Amino acid sequence: MSENGEFGYIKDRLAPLAAGFKGALELKDDAALLSVRSGRELVITADTLVEGRHFPEGTDPALAARKALRVNLSDLAAMGARPVAYMTNIVWPAGATDALRGGFADGLAVDQEAFAITLIGGDTTSAKGPWVIAVTAFGEVPAGKAITRSGAKPGDCLVVTGTIGDACLGLKVETKEYQPSADDRAHLLERLQLPMPRLALADALHAHAHAAIDVSDGLIADSGHLATSSGLSLEIDLDVLPLSEAAHRWLDNQDDTQAARLALASFGDDYELACAVPQARVDTFTAELRKAGLRATVLGAFSSGDTVTVVSGGTPIEHGAGGFTHF
Amino acid sequence: MSENGEFGYIKDRLAPLAAGFKGALELKDDAALLSVRSGRELVITADTLVEGRHFPEGTDPALAARKALRVNLSDLAAMGARPVAYMTNIVWPAGATDALRGGFADGLAVDQEAFAITLIGGDTTSAKGPWVIAVTAFGEVPAGKAITRSGAKPGDCLVVTGTIGDACLGLKVETKEYQPSADDRAHLLERLQLPMPRLALADALHAHAHAAIDVSDGLIADSGHLATSSGLSLEIDLDVLPLSEAAHRWLDNQDDTQAARLALASFGDDYELACAVPQARVDTFTAELRKAGLRATVLGAFSSGDTVTVVSGGTPIEHGAGGFTHF
Repeated sequence: MSENGEFGYIKDRLAPLAAGFKGALELKDDAALLSVRSGRELVITADTLVEGRHFPEGTDPALAARKALRVNLSDLAAMGARPVAYMTNIVWPAGATDALRGGFADGLAVDQEAFAITLIGGDTTSAKGPWVIAVTAFGEVPAGKAITRSGAKPGDCLVVTGTIGDACLGLKVETKEYQPSADDRAHLLERLQLPMPRLALADALHAHAHAAIDVSDGLIADSGHLATSSGLSLEIDLDVLPLSEAAHRWLDNQDDTQAARLALASFGDDYELACAVPQARVDTFTAELRKAGLRATVLGAFSSGDTVTVVSGGTPIEHGAGGFTHF
Repeated sequence: MSENGEFGYIKDRLAPLAAGFKGALELKDDAALLSVRSGRELVITADTLVEGRHFPEGTDPALAARKALRVNLSDLAAMGARPVAYMTNIVWPAGATDALRGGFADGLAVDQEAFAITLIGGDTTSAKGPWVIAVTAFGEVPAGKAITRSGAKPGDCLVVTGTIGDACLGLKVETKEYQPSADDRAHLLERLQLPMPRLALADALHAHAHAAIDVSDGLIADSGHLATSSGLSLEIDLDVLPLSEAAHRWLDNQDDTQAARLALASFGDDYELACAVPQARVDTFTAELRKAGLRATVLGAFSSGDTVTVVSGGTPIEHGAGGFTHF
């Protein structure tokens, strides 16, 4: 790497990603400027991916970049926010190649166009350790209208978007523990590597949902966060867990399908939204999601109390922590 | 670490740092909310510290936390912003002790009170690698009034606050390359470990400075950024480099004092401000800084052109890159 490596990389590869956003100051300054329109407030989220922990060593750097962006956009989606901009704090691993650094910028370029956001700043350094990609993402909502975890009300239904468990199986594919057909392999890997933040649901969430969370730590754990934050109990029916066709094919070959469903509902990395929706609005909410090409499944209901119960075959089952822990 | 380690740590140690800031949502949600007052805009900066690179292994974690905050606040200071809030993305090293994690929270607590800011969110994870502390800091300025690097005008003086080179010598103390008196040792280490962001100068900057930057990569390099961003030449007189008494005592024992001054002006980590101030306002600016207990030194002047010249004994000298490179 040349003596001027960082400045050259920022100028040649990152600054173009900030073009057209005046407050990014061409990435030349100490900080970025961000205006918030009257009547709006800023929604800010920060998530970090570490090589070897959140994605395997040797991952295509463009995919790593895109996943780092998408998991942050998913947090904005859960709040019903419209994404605006993002920053990246990168720790390059020792000996990072031009291919790694170039691929990273390429990945950001693809997804920032796909999601209409702009890089506005950040920081790069390097260290003897794994590659670290920290992203901070900025969105906006009408002031006072952000959808939080704590708004669920007794009687609300737990509605989950899309399908659950594909990322769990994608990891089994990645580690060669599961070797399905080429089509299923492609589907499951894409779901793991390129989750789709549900930003298109913002209007439906604002119109119908009392609370929402994105499923990153596991459907049971994250739905449980909705219940806990709202001071409520929640019952989740594992038997109606929405699965993709690829996941159904995997499930058909499992001896203990209940344990298998529980594993899928506990893994996380789905980046679907788990929402609390009043019963009277579930049909409308579901219809609006269908228009967006997304399935919506009623998985359970909130009630007074403070317990999270998972039910299968009509009987409560042991579900443990039900989610990924970070230590 | 218990299964519930992260949630427990966030609830017990980090959430109290977010108390009283409504938009932090008690650190329980997917993202934080930040309102910006009418007529203001947000100033956002992100800087990362890595153990073993930006601070030595075994550093008191409270000091590491405080330095991570302060280097970000220094960027806000350079823009003339008032700090409001911050987020942290932490990668704990494998086997991080409760003492490390507790000390980190203790350090944040001390400095967020000192600088009247609040934690509003972030992310923690862990990995087999060095401890990584990424901070994103938020400040505000009157809309359109942020002080950037690019505003210097021909004839402006280069004015630097405080003294330069103490952090360079602090590192020599830390590595035992330099063993001064106990008093000098304490002074130099504090300047390295606990830089003071020059937030108190915001009013003076807004009233008098055309451009500013904080000295993180080296006085010559950073002052050079002011010139380059403003499309100007800059001449810096190394002989008037402002030094602390401790630095003067070190300099007195150097054989090649010109090379020694050049080293101090090239090291960085000073977190003083280098400002472009019109000649007619230098006296007023200096007087206002003196009221804030800070020295101000005129080190050179901007002019038409595109070269950065360092002068000593009236003669231009070779100064190389003059600053820290990040790769």
